[in-house]
Amino acid sequence: MASPFLFYSEMVVEEKGKNIKLVLEYDGNAYHGWQRQKGEISIQGILEDKIGVITGKRAKLIASGRTDSGVHALHQVCNFLTKTNIDPGSLKKGLNALTPPDILIKEAKYVPLSFHARYSAKSKTYEYRILNRREPNVFLRHYTWHVPQKLHMAKMRECLSALQGRHDFSSFRSTGSGISNPVRTMILAECHLSRNGIIRIVFEADGFLRHMVRNIVGTIVQVGSGKIEVEKFLEILQARDRQKAGPKAPAQGLFLSMVRY
Amino acid sequence: MASPFLFYSEMVVEEKGKNIKLVLEYDGNAYHGWQRQKGEISIQGILEDKIGVITGKRAKLIASGRTDSGVHALHQVCNFLTKTNIDPGSLKKGLNALTPPDILIKEAKYVPLSFHARYSAKSKTYEYRILNRREPNVFLRHYTWHVPQKLHMAKMRECLSALQGRHDFSSFRSTGSGISNPVRTMILAECHLSRNGIIRIVFEADGFLRHMVRNIVGTIVQVGSGKIEVEKFLEILQARDRQKAGPKAPAQGLFLSMVRY
Repeated sequence: MASPFLFYSEMVVEEKGKNIKLVLEYDGNAYHGWQRQKGEISIQGILEDKIGVITGKRAKLIASGRTDSGVHALHQVCNFLTKTNIDPGSLKKGLNALTPPDILIKEAKYVPLSFHARYSAKSKTYEYRILNRREPNVFLRHYTWHVPQKLHMAKMRECLSALQGRHDFSSFRSTGSGISNPVRTMILAECHLSRNGIIRIVFEADGFLRHMVRNIVGTIVQVGSGKIEVEKFLEILQARDRQKAGPKAPAQGLFLSMVRY
Repeated sequence: MASPFLFYSEMVVEEKGKNIKLVLEYDGNAYHGWQRQKGEISIQGILEDKIGVITGKRAKLIASGRTDSGVHALHQVCNFLTKTNIDPGSLKKGLNALTPPDILIKEAKYVPLSFHARYSAKSKTYEYRILNRREPNVFLRHYTWHVPQKLHMAKMRECLSALQGRHDFSSFRSTGSGISNPVRTMILAECHLSRNGIIRIVFEADGFLRHMVRNIVGTIVQVGSGKIEVEKFLEILQARDRQKAGPKAPAQGLFLSMVRY
Protein backbone atom coordinates (compact mmCIF):
# COMPACT_ATOMS: atom_id res chain seq x y z
CA MET A 1 0.00 0.00 0.00
CA ALA A 2 1.41 3.42 -0.91
CA SER A 3 2.30 5.75 1.92
CA PRO A 4 -0.10 8.68 2.10
CA PHE A 5 2.73 10.97 3.03
CA LEU A 6 4.64 11.12 -0.26
CA PHE A 7 5.33 14.50 -1.79
CA TYR A 8 4.72 15.24 -5.43
CA SER A 9 8.02 16.05 -7.05
CA GLU A 10 9.69 15.22 -10.34
CA MET A 11 12.10 12.90 -8.59
CA VAL A 12 9.32 10.89 -7.04
CA VAL A 13 7.40 10.81 -10.32
CA GLU A 14 10.41 9.25 -12.00
CA GLU A 15 10.80 6.67 -9.29
CA LYS A 16 7.19 5.85 -8.49
CA GLY A 17 5.52 6.68 -11.78
CA LYS A 18 2.13 8.39 -11.77
CA ASN A 19 -0.91 8.20 -9.56
CA ILE A 20 -4.24 7.63 -11.31
CA LYS A 21 -7.60 8.07 -9.60
CA LEU A 22 -10.69 6.22 -10.84
CA VAL A 23 -14.33 6.91 -10.03
CA LEU A 24 -16.49 3.81 -10.37
CA GLU A 25 -20.12 2.77 -10.45
CA TYR A 26 -20.97 -0.89 -9.98
CA ASP A 27 -23.81 -3.30 -9.45
CA GLY A 28 -22.54 -5.51 -6.63
CA ASN A 29 -25.08 -8.25 -7.20
CA ALA A 30 -22.78 -10.64 -9.08
CA TYR A 31 -19.66 -9.96 -7.00
CA HIS A 32 -18.13 -11.23 -3.82
CA GLY A 33 -17.59 -7.62 -2.77
CA TRP A 34 -14.84 -5.14 -3.61
CA GLN A 35 -11.85 -7.00 -2.20
CA ARG A 36 -9.74 -9.41 -4.22
CA GLN A 37 -10.05 -12.92 -2.72
CA LYS A 38 -8.76 -16.25 -3.96
CA GLY A 39 -11.38 -18.17 -5.91
CA GLU A 40 -13.99 -15.39 -5.72
CA ILE A 41 -15.04 -12.84 -8.33
CA SER A 42 -14.41 -9.36 -6.95
CA ILE A 43 -14.56 -5.87 -8.40
CA GLN A 44 -10.98 -5.16 -7.34
CA GLY A 45 -9.79 -8.40 -8.94
CA ILE A 46 -11.44 -7.66 -12.28
CA LEU A 47 -10.19 -4.07 -12.39
CA GLU A 48 -6.61 -4.94 -11.41
CA ASP A 49 -6.47 -7.64 -14.08
CA LYS A 50 -7.93 -5.42 -16.83
CA ILE A 51 -5.60 -2.54 -15.96
CA GLY A 52 -2.81 -5.12 -16.33
CA VAL A 53 -4.09 -6.04 -19.80
CA ILE A 54 -3.93 -2.38 -20.83
CA THR A 55 -0.73 -1.23 -19.12
CA GLY A 56 1.20 -4.50 -19.18
CA LYS A 57 1.41 -4.65 -15.40
CA ARG A 58 -1.33 -5.68 -12.98
CA ALA A 59 -2.27 -2.73 -10.80
CA LYS A 60 -2.53 -2.63 -7.01
CA LEU A 61 -5.74 -0.72 -6.38
CA ILE A 62 -6.41 1.28 -3.22
CA ALA A 63 -10.14 1.93 -2.68
CA SER A 64 -11.85 4.44 -0.37
CA GLY A 65 -13.09 1.35 1.45
CA ARG A 66 -14.26 -2.18 0.78
CA THR A 67 -17.85 -2.86 -0.11
CA ASP A 68 -19.29 -6.21 0.96
CA SER A 69 -20.72 -8.95 -1.22
CA GLY A 70 -23.88 -7.68 -2.96
CA VAL A 71 -23.33 -4.02 -2.00
CA HIS A 72 -23.43 -1.47 -4.84
CA ALA A 73 -21.55 1.74 -5.61
CA LEU A 74 -22.88 4.87 -7.26
CA HIS A 75 -19.52 6.55 -6.63
CA GLN A 76 -16.56 4.52 -5.42
CA VAL A 77 -13.06 6.00 -5.65
CA CYS A 78 -9.80 4.13 -6.02
CA ASN A 79 -6.26 4.94 -7.11
CA PHE A 80 -3.12 3.14 -8.28
CA LEU A 81 0.50 3.92 -9.07
CA THR A 82 1.64 3.17 -12.58
CA LYS A 83 4.54 3.81 -14.94
CA THR A 84 2.36 3.56 -18.03
CA ASN A 85 2.32 6.43 -20.52
CA ILE A 86 -1.27 5.68 -21.51
CA ASP A 87 -3.28 8.78 -20.64
CA PRO A 88 -6.22 8.48 -18.20
CA GLY A 89 -8.82 9.19 -20.92
CA SER A 90 -7.64 6.26 -23.03
CA LEU A 91 -7.33 4.09 -19.94
CA LYS A 92 -10.97 4.85 -19.06
CA LYS A 93 -12.13 3.94 -22.57
CA GLY A 94 -10.07 0.77 -22.62
CA LEU A 95 -11.27 -0.34 -19.20
CA ASN A 96 -14.91 0.30 -20.06
CA ALA A 97 -14.46 -1.85 -23.16
CA LEU A 98 -12.86 -4.70 -21.18
CA THR A 99 -14.87 -4.77 -17.94
CA PRO A 100 -18.33 -6.38 -17.73
CA PRO A 101 -21.37 -4.07 -18.10
CA ASP A 102 -22.07 -4.08 -14.36
CA ILE A 103 -18.85 -2.12 -13.71
CA LEU A 104 -18.50 1.41 -15.12
CA ILE A 105 -15.44 3.66 -14.97
CA LYS A 106 -16.99 7.14 -14.75
CA GLU A 107 -13.77 9.09 -14.45
CA ALA A 108 -10.00 8.55 -14.66
CA LYS A 109 -7.45 11.28 -13.98
CA TYR A 110 -3.95 12.01 -12.72
CA VAL A 111 -3.73 13.02 -9.07
CA PRO A 112 -0.71 14.02 -6.96
CA LEU A 113 1.30 11.10 -5.61
CA SER A 114 0.15 12.11 -2.12
CA PHE A 115 -3.47 11.19 -2.99
CA HIS A 116 -4.57 8.00 -1.27
CA ALA A 117 -8.18 6.90 -1.93
CA ARG A 118 -8.61 5.68 1.63
CA TYR A 119 -6.46 7.92 3.82
CA SER A 120 -7.18 11.14 1.93
CA ALA A 121 -10.98 10.73 2.18
CA LYS A 122 -12.68 13.39 4.34
CA SER A 123 -16.05 11.64 4.38
CA LYS A 124 -18.01 8.83 2.78
CA THR A 125 -21.72 8.69 2.12
CA TYR A 126 -23.84 5.56 2.07
CA GLU A 127 -27.45 5.31 1.00
CA TYR A 128 -29.73 2.46 2.07
CA ARG A 129 -32.91 1.84 0.05
CA ILE A 130 -36.00 0.18 1.48
CA LEU A 131 -39.09 -0.69 -0.56
CA ASN A 132 -41.79 -0.01 2.01
CA ARG A 133 -45.07 -1.29 0.63
CA ARG A 134 -46.96 -4.55 0.71
CA GLU A 135 -46.19 -5.69 -2.82
CA PRO A 136 -42.59 -6.44 -3.77
CA ASN A 137 -41.22 -5.23 -7.13
CA VAL A 138 -39.29 -7.56 -9.39
CA PHE A 139 -37.14 -4.75 -10.84
CA LEU A 140 -36.00 -3.58 -7.41
CA ARG A 141 -35.25 -7.01 -5.93
CA HIS A 142 -31.48 -6.55 -6.19
CA TYR A 143 -31.54 -2.85 -5.22
CA THR A 144 -33.83 -2.54 -2.20
CA TRP A 145 -34.77 -4.33 1.00
CA HIS A 146 -38.47 -5.12 0.82
CA VAL A 147 -40.14 -4.32 4.16
CA PRO A 148 -43.91 -4.89 3.81
CA GLN A 149 -44.95 -3.44 7.23
CA LYS A 150 -45.63 0.30 7.13
CA LEU A 151 -42.65 2.11 8.69
CA HIS A 152 -43.08 5.14 10.95
CA MET A 153 -40.91 7.83 9.34
CA ALA A 154 -40.98 10.32 12.24
CA LYS A 155 -39.71 7.74 14.72
CA MET A 156 -36.94 6.66 12.37
CA ARG A 157 -35.95 10.32 11.91
CA GLU A 158 -35.65 10.71 15.68
CA CYS A 159 -33.19 7.81 15.81
CA LEU A 160 -31.23 9.14 12.87
CA SER A 161 -30.79 12.60 14.36
CA ALA A 162 -29.53 11.03 17.56
CA LEU A 163 -26.78 9.38 15.51
CA GLN A 164 -25.43 12.70 14.25
CA GLY A 165 -22.25 13.90 15.91
CA ARG A 166 -19.32 12.07 17.48
CA HIS A 167 -20.18 8.66 18.97
CA ASP A 168 -18.74 5.31 19.89
CA PHE A 169 -20.57 3.07 17.40
CA SER A 170 -19.53 -0.26 18.93
CA SER A 171 -23.18 -1.37 19.20
CA PHE A 172 -23.43 -1.27 15.41
CA ARG A 173 -20.09 -2.83 14.54
CA SER A 174 -19.91 -6.46 13.43
CA THR A 175 -17.27 -8.68 14.94
CA GLY A 176 -14.22 -9.63 12.94
CA SER A 177 -13.33 -6.01 12.26
CA GLY A 178 -10.25 -5.78 14.47
CA ILE A 179 -9.74 -3.56 17.46
CA SER A 180 -9.56 -0.12 15.84
CA ASN A 181 -11.09 2.94 17.45
CA PRO A 182 -14.92 2.63 17.26
CA VAL A 183 -15.51 6.39 17.48
CA ARG A 184 -16.77 8.05 14.32
CA THR A 185 -18.31 11.40 13.47
CA MET A 186 -21.68 11.12 11.77
CA ILE A 187 -22.01 14.29 9.70
CA LEU A 188 -25.49 13.53 8.42
CA ALA A 189 -28.10 10.83 8.98
CA GLU A 190 -31.53 11.33 7.48
CA CYS A 191 -34.30 9.55 5.62
CA HIS A 192 -36.54 10.47 2.72
CA LEU A 193 -39.70 8.83 1.45
CA SER A 194 -39.75 8.92 -2.34
CA ARG A 195 -42.58 8.06 -4.68
CA ASN A 196 -43.33 4.37 -5.15
CA GLY A 197 -42.80 3.75 -1.44
CA ILE A 198 -39.00 3.83 -1.54
CA ILE A 199 -37.34 5.07 1.64
CA ARG A 200 -33.76 6.30 1.26
CA ILE A 201 -31.68 6.48 4.43
CA VAL A 202 -28.54 8.54 3.91
CA PHE A 203 -25.46 8.49 6.14
CA GLU A 204 -22.39 10.68 5.79
CA ALA A 205 -19.51 10.08 8.21
CA ASP A 206 -15.76 10.46 8.47
CA GLY A 207 -15.61 6.67 8.43
CA PHE A 208 -17.72 3.57 8.98
CA LEU A 209 -17.14 0.45 11.06
CA ARG A 210 -17.74 -3.04 9.66
CA HIS A 211 -21.44 -3.49 8.66
CA MET A 212 -22.23 -0.29 10.57
CA VAL A 213 -24.82 1.03 8.10
CA ARG A 214 -26.60 -2.32 7.76
CA ASN A 215 -26.63 -2.83 11.53
CA ILE A 216 -28.05 0.67 12.10
CA VAL A 217 -30.69 0.21 9.37
CA GLY A 218 -31.72 -3.20 10.73
CA THR A 219 -32.28 -1.64 14.16
CA ILE A 220 -34.00 1.50 12.85
CA VAL A 221 -36.45 -0.67 10.91
CA GLN A 222 -37.33 -2.34 14.22
CA VAL A 223 -38.19 1.12 15.53
CA GLY A 224 -40.11 2.05 12.37
CA SER A 225 -42.21 -1.11 12.53
CA GLY A 226 -42.96 -0.62 16.23
CA LYS A 227 -40.98 -3.60 17.47
CA ILE A 228 -38.85 -1.41 19.73
CA GLU A 229 -39.21 2.19 20.93
CA VAL A 230 -37.04 5.20 20.07
CA GLU A 231 -35.78 5.22 23.68
CA LYS A 232 -34.59 1.64 23.28
CA PHE A 233 -32.65 2.66 20.18
CA LEU A 234 -30.90 5.44 22.12
CA GLU A 235 -30.03 2.94 24.85
CA ILE A 236 -28.55 0.59 22.26
CA LEU A 237 -26.33 3.36 20.87
CA GLN A 238 -25.12 4.20 24.38
CA ALA A 239 -24.60 0.55 25.37
CA ARG A 240 -21.59 0.09 23.02
CA ASP A 241 -22.50 -3.56 22.79
CA ARG A 242 -23.29 -5.32 19.50
CA GLN A 243 -25.48 -7.88 21.30
CA LYS A 244 -28.09 -5.18 21.94
CA ALA A 245 -28.74 -4.06 18.36
CA GLY A 246 -31.17 -5.48 15.81
CA PRO A 247 -30.30 -7.80 12.93
CA LYS A 248 -28.18 -6.63 10.00
CA ALA A 249 -30.16 -5.29 7.01
CA PRO A 250 -29.51 -7.23 3.78
CA ALA A 251 -26.68 -6.18 1.45
CA GLN A 252 -28.70 -5.49 -1.70
CA GLY A 253 -30.21 -2.23 -0.37
CA LEU A 254 -26.83 -0.60 0.30
CA PHE A 255 -25.07 1.86 -2.02
CA LEU A 256 -21.78 3.68 -1.50
CA SER A 257 -22.91 6.98 -2.99
CA MET A 258 -20.11 9.52 -2.48
CA VAL A 259 -16.55 9.95 -1.21
CA ARG A 260 -15.37 13.47 -0.43
CA TYR A 261 -11.70 14.55 -0.36
CA MET B 1 -57.63 -22.18 -26.55
CA ALA B 2 -60.96 -21.29 -24.97
CA SER B 3 -63.60 -19.74 -27.18
CA PRO B 4 -64.23 -16.14 -26.23
CA PHE B 5 -67.93 -16.61 -26.84
CA LEU B 6 -68.82 -18.85 -23.90
CA PHE B 7 -71.57 -17.76 -21.57
CA TYR B 8 -71.21 -17.88 -17.84
CA SER B 9 -73.76 -20.34 -16.49
CA GLU B 10 -73.82 -23.00 -13.83
CA MET B 11 -73.84 -25.70 -16.46
CA VAL B 12 -70.71 -24.38 -18.10
CA VAL B 13 -69.00 -23.94 -14.73
CA GLU B 14 -69.61 -27.57 -13.96
CA GLU B 15 -68.24 -28.68 -17.28
CA LYS B 16 -65.38 -26.25 -17.78
CA GLY B 17 -64.50 -25.42 -14.19
CA LYS B 18 -63.56 -21.86 -13.30
CA ASN B 19 -61.72 -19.12 -15.09
CA ILE B 20 -58.90 -17.44 -13.15
CA LYS B 21 -57.24 -14.22 -14.23
CA LEU B 22 -53.68 -13.37 -13.17
CA VAL B 23 -51.93 -10.01 -13.31
CA LEU B 24 -48.16 -10.37 -13.55
CA GLU B 25 -45.00 -8.31 -13.29
CA TYR B 26 -41.78 -9.79 -14.62
CA ASP B 27 -38.19 -8.98 -15.41
CA GLY B 28 -37.71 -10.52 -18.86
CA ASN B 29 -33.93 -10.44 -18.72
CA ALA B 30 -33.40 -14.12 -17.86
CA TYR B 31 -36.21 -15.48 -20.07
CA HIS B 32 -36.67 -16.54 -23.62
CA GLY B 33 -39.84 -14.48 -23.73
CA TRP B 34 -43.38 -15.25 -22.61
CA GLN B 35 -44.11 -18.22 -24.82
CA ARG B 36 -43.44 -21.80 -23.82
CA GLN B 37 -40.82 -23.30 -26.15
CA LYS B 38 -39.03 -26.60 -26.02
CA GLY B 39 -35.62 -26.36 -24.35
CA GLU B 40 -36.01 -22.67 -23.46
CA ILE B 41 -36.90 -21.05 -20.13
CA SER B 42 -40.08 -19.03 -20.61
CA ILE B 43 -42.42 -17.18 -18.25
CA GLN B 44 -45.42 -19.14 -19.53
CA GLY B 45 -43.57 -22.42 -19.02
CA ILE B 46 -42.64 -21.65 -15.43
CA LEU B 47 -46.13 -20.43 -14.51
CA GLU B 48 -47.94 -23.36 -16.14
CA ASP B 49 -45.68 -25.83 -14.32
CA LYS B 50 -46.04 -24.12 -10.93
CA ILE B 51 -49.83 -23.88 -11.27
CA GLY B 52 -49.66 -27.61 -11.96
CA VAL B 53 -47.73 -28.17 -8.75
CA ILE B 54 -50.45 -26.34 -6.80
CA THR B 55 -53.62 -27.58 -8.52
CA GLY B 56 -52.40 -31.01 -9.58
CA LYS B 57 -52.92 -30.22 -13.26
CA ARG B 58 -50.65 -28.18 -15.51
CA ALA B 59 -52.50 -25.07 -16.66
CA LYS B 60 -52.88 -23.82 -20.22
CA LEU B 61 -52.29 -20.09 -19.90
CA ILE B 62 -53.72 -17.52 -22.30
CA ALA B 63 -51.84 -14.20 -22.19
CA SER B 64 -52.88 -10.80 -23.52
CA GLY B 65 -50.00 -11.24 -25.94
CA ARG B 66 -46.51 -12.68 -26.10
CA THR B 67 -43.55 -10.67 -24.97
CA ASP B 68 -40.23 -11.35 -26.71
CA SER B 69 -37.00 -12.53 -25.17
CA GLY B 70 -35.66 -9.86 -22.77
CA VAL B 71 -38.88 -7.80 -22.80
CA HIS B 72 -40.38 -6.94 -19.39
CA ALA B 73 -43.88 -6.59 -18.02
CA LEU B 74 -45.16 -4.14 -15.43
CA HIS B 75 -48.68 -5.45 -16.01
CA GLN B 76 -49.26 -8.59 -18.07
CA VAL B 77 -52.62 -10.34 -17.91
CA CYS B 78 -53.31 -14.02 -18.44
CA ASN B 79 -56.09 -16.47 -17.62
CA PHE B 80 -56.65 -20.20 -17.39
CA LEU B 81 -59.50 -22.64 -16.88
CA THR B 82 -59.27 -24.90 -13.87
CA LYS B 83 -61.35 -27.30 -11.82
CA THR B 84 -59.35 -26.68 -8.65
CA ASN B 85 -61.14 -25.57 -5.49
CA ILE B 86 -58.11 -23.61 -4.31
CA ASP B 87 -59.23 -19.97 -4.04
CA PRO B 88 -57.38 -17.32 -6.08
CA GLY B 89 -55.87 -15.67 -2.98
CA SER B 90 -54.20 -18.89 -1.90
CA LEU B 91 -53.16 -19.61 -5.47
CA LYS B 92 -51.45 -16.20 -5.65
CA LYS B 93 -49.59 -16.82 -2.38
CA GLY B 94 -48.56 -20.31 -3.44
CA LEU B 95 -47.37 -19.17 -6.87
CA ASN B 96 -45.35 -16.29 -5.42
CA ALA B 97 -43.66 -18.76 -3.09
CA LEU B 98 -42.84 -21.16 -5.95
CA THR B 99 -41.87 -18.83 -8.81
CA PRO B 100 -38.42 -17.18 -9.02
CA PRO B 101 -38.14 -13.61 -7.66
CA ASP B 102 -38.13 -12.10 -11.16
CA ILE B 103 -41.78 -13.11 -11.65
CA LEU B 104 -44.47 -11.62 -9.40
CA ILE B 105 -48.17 -12.48 -9.32
CA LYS B 106 -49.77 -9.15 -8.41
CA GLU B 107 -53.37 -10.29 -8.58
CA ALA B 108 -55.40 -13.49 -8.99
CA LYS B 109 -59.19 -13.56 -9.21
CA TYR B 110 -62.18 -15.38 -10.66
CA VAL B 111 -63.53 -13.94 -13.90
CA PRO B 112 -66.51 -15.00 -16.03
CA LEU B 113 -65.82 -17.93 -18.35
CA SER B 114 -66.25 -15.51 -21.25
CA PHE B 115 -63.09 -13.62 -20.22
CA HIS B 116 -60.20 -14.27 -22.59
CA ALA B 117 -56.94 -12.43 -21.81
CA ARG B 118 -56.20 -11.90 -25.49
CA TYR B 119 -59.56 -11.57 -27.24
CA SER B 120 -61.24 -9.57 -24.47
CA ALA B 121 -58.48 -6.92 -24.38
CA LYS B 122 -59.62 -3.46 -25.51
CA SER B 123 -56.13 -1.99 -25.62
CA LYS B 124 -52.55 -2.69 -24.62
CA THR B 125 -49.94 -0.16 -23.53
CA TYR B 126 -46.20 -0.51 -24.05
CA GLU B 127 -43.54 1.75 -22.65
CA TYR B 128 -40.06 2.01 -24.15
CA ARG B 129 -37.27 3.46 -21.98
CA ILE B 130 -34.18 5.15 -23.40
CA LEU B 131 -31.27 6.37 -21.29
CA ASN B 132 -30.33 9.49 -23.23
CA ARG B 133 -27.06 10.80 -21.84
CA ARG B 134 -23.40 10.23 -22.55
CA GLU B 135 -22.61 8.02 -19.58
CA PRO B 136 -24.29 4.64 -19.34
CA ASN B 137 -25.66 3.46 -15.98
CA VAL B 138 -24.90 0.00 -14.68
CA PHE B 139 -28.23 -0.28 -12.80
CA LEU B 140 -30.27 0.48 -15.92
CA ARG B 141 -28.38 -1.77 -18.33
CA HIS B 142 -31.17 -4.38 -18.43
CA TYR B 143 -34.00 -1.81 -18.37
CA THR B 144 -33.11 0.89 -20.89
CA TRP B 145 -31.57 1.36 -24.31
CA HIS B 146 -28.53 3.59 -23.87
CA VAL B 147 -28.45 6.22 -26.65
CA PRO B 148 -25.52 8.60 -26.00
CA GLN B 149 -26.33 11.17 -28.73
CA LYS B 150 -28.67 13.93 -27.56
CA LEU B 151 -32.16 13.22 -28.94
CA HIS B 152 -34.43 15.99 -30.22
CA MET B 153 -37.66 15.56 -28.25
CA ALA B 154 -39.83 17.91 -30.36
CA LYS B 155 -39.03 16.06 -33.57
CA MET B 156 -39.74 12.71 -31.95
CA ARG B 157 -43.07 14.06 -30.66
CA GLU B 158 -44.01 15.09 -34.21
CA CYS B 159 -43.47 11.53 -35.41
CA LEU B 160 -45.38 10.07 -32.49
CA SER B 161 -48.43 12.26 -33.06
CA ALA B 162 -48.48 11.22 -36.70
CA LEU B 163 -48.79 7.60 -35.53
CA GLN B 164 -52.00 8.28 -33.60
CA GLY B 165 -55.18 7.11 -35.28
CA ARG B 166 -55.91 4.22 -37.63
CA HIS B 167 -52.99 3.19 -39.85
CA ASP B 168 -51.54 0.30 -41.82
CA PHE B 169 -48.36 -0.33 -39.78
CA SER B 170 -46.74 -2.75 -42.27
CA SER B 171 -43.56 -0.62 -42.36
CA PHE B 172 -43.01 -1.39 -38.69
CA ARG B 173 -43.90 -5.07 -38.69
CA SER B 174 -41.18 -7.70 -38.60
CA THR B 175 -41.45 -10.64 -40.98
CA GLY B 176 -42.48 -14.02 -39.69
CA SER B 177 -45.66 -12.65 -38.18
CA GLY B 178 -48.11 -14.22 -40.60
CA ILE B 179 -50.46 -12.44 -42.93
CA SER B 180 -52.94 -10.93 -40.48
CA ASN B 181 -54.44 -7.50 -41.03
CA PRO B 182 -51.69 -4.87 -40.49
CA VAL B 183 -54.17 -2.10 -39.62
CA ARG B 184 -54.18 -0.98 -35.99
CA THR B 185 -55.59 1.97 -34.10
CA MET B 186 -52.98 3.86 -32.12
CA ILE B 187 -54.88 5.48 -29.25
CA LEU B 188 -51.89 7.28 -27.79
CA ALA B 189 -48.22 7.74 -28.72
CA GLU B 190 -46.16 10.20 -26.73
CA CYS B 191 -42.80 10.69 -25.08
CA HIS B 192 -41.68 12.14 -21.78
CA LEU B 193 -38.24 13.16 -20.59
CA SER B 194 -37.79 12.25 -16.93
CA ARG B 195 -35.02 13.23 -14.57
CA ASN B 196 -31.71 11.38 -15.02
CA GLY B 197 -32.05 11.60 -18.80
CA ILE B 198 -34.58 8.80 -19.17
CA ILE B 199 -36.98 9.15 -22.09
CA ARG B 200 -40.19 7.12 -21.84
CA ILE B 201 -42.06 6.53 -25.07
CA VAL B 202 -45.59 5.31 -24.42
CA PHE B 203 -47.84 3.57 -26.97
CA GLU B 204 -51.44 2.52 -26.43
CA ALA B 205 -53.16 0.66 -29.27
CA ASP B 206 -55.93 -1.84 -29.88
CA GLY B 207 -53.19 -4.26 -30.89
CA PHE B 208 -49.56 -4.44 -31.96
CA LEU B 209 -47.85 -6.22 -34.86
CA ARG B 210 -44.69 -8.25 -34.36
CA HIS B 211 -41.83 -6.04 -33.06
CA MET B 212 -43.93 -2.99 -33.93
CA VAL B 213 -42.92 -0.90 -30.90
CA ARG B 214 -39.22 -1.71 -31.25
CA ASN B 215 -39.27 -0.99 -34.98
CA ILE B 216 -41.03 2.34 -34.42
CA VAL B 217 -38.63 3.31 -31.61
CA GLY B 218 -35.58 2.38 -33.69
CA THR B 219 -36.80 4.65 -36.47
CA ILE B 220 -37.86 7.50 -34.17
CA VAL B 221 -34.40 7.49 -32.58
CA GLN B 222 -32.98 8.02 -36.08
CA VAL B 223 -35.18 11.12 -36.31
CA GLY B 224 -34.22 12.28 -32.82
CA SER B 225 -30.52 11.97 -33.53
CA GLY B 226 -30.84 13.82 -36.84
CA LYS B 227 -30.04 10.85 -39.08
CA ILE B 228 -33.37 11.19 -40.91
CA GLU B 229 -35.96 13.98 -41.05
CA VAL B 230 -39.53 13.94 -39.71
CA GLU B 231 -40.81 13.99 -43.32
CA LYS B 232 -38.86 10.82 -44.03
CA PHE B 233 -40.52 9.17 -41.02
CA LEU B 234 -43.97 10.07 -42.36
CA GLU B 235 -43.00 8.63 -45.77
CA ILE B 236 -41.90 5.41 -44.08
CA LEU B 237 -45.25 5.06 -42.30
CA GLN B 238 -47.11 5.60 -45.59
CA ALA B 239 -44.84 3.25 -47.57
CA ARG B 240 -46.17 0.11 -45.80
CA ASP B 241 -42.80 -1.50 -46.46
CA ARG B 242 -40.57 -2.85 -43.68
CA GLN B 243 -37.45 -2.31 -45.81
CA LYS B 244 -37.84 1.46 -45.37
CA ALA B 245 -37.81 1.67 -41.57
CA GLY B 246 -34.84 1.93 -39.22
CA PRO B 247 -33.33 -0.90 -37.19
CA LYS B 248 -35.25 -2.54 -34.35
CA ALA B 249 -34.57 -1.07 -30.90
CA PRO B 250 -33.16 -3.59 -28.40
CA ALA B 251 -35.50 -5.68 -26.25
CA GLN B 252 -34.32 -4.61 -22.80
CA GLY B 253 -35.92 -1.13 -23.01
CA LEU B 254 -39.43 -2.49 -23.64
CA PHE B 255 -42.13 -2.93 -20.98
CA LEU B 256 -45.70 -4.14 -21.40
CA SER B 257 -47.25 -1.68 -18.96
CA MET B 258 -51.03 -2.10 -19.12
CA VAL B 259 -53.84 -4.15 -20.65
CA ARG B 260 -57.34 -2.69 -20.60
CA TYR B 261 -60.54 -4.73 -20.83
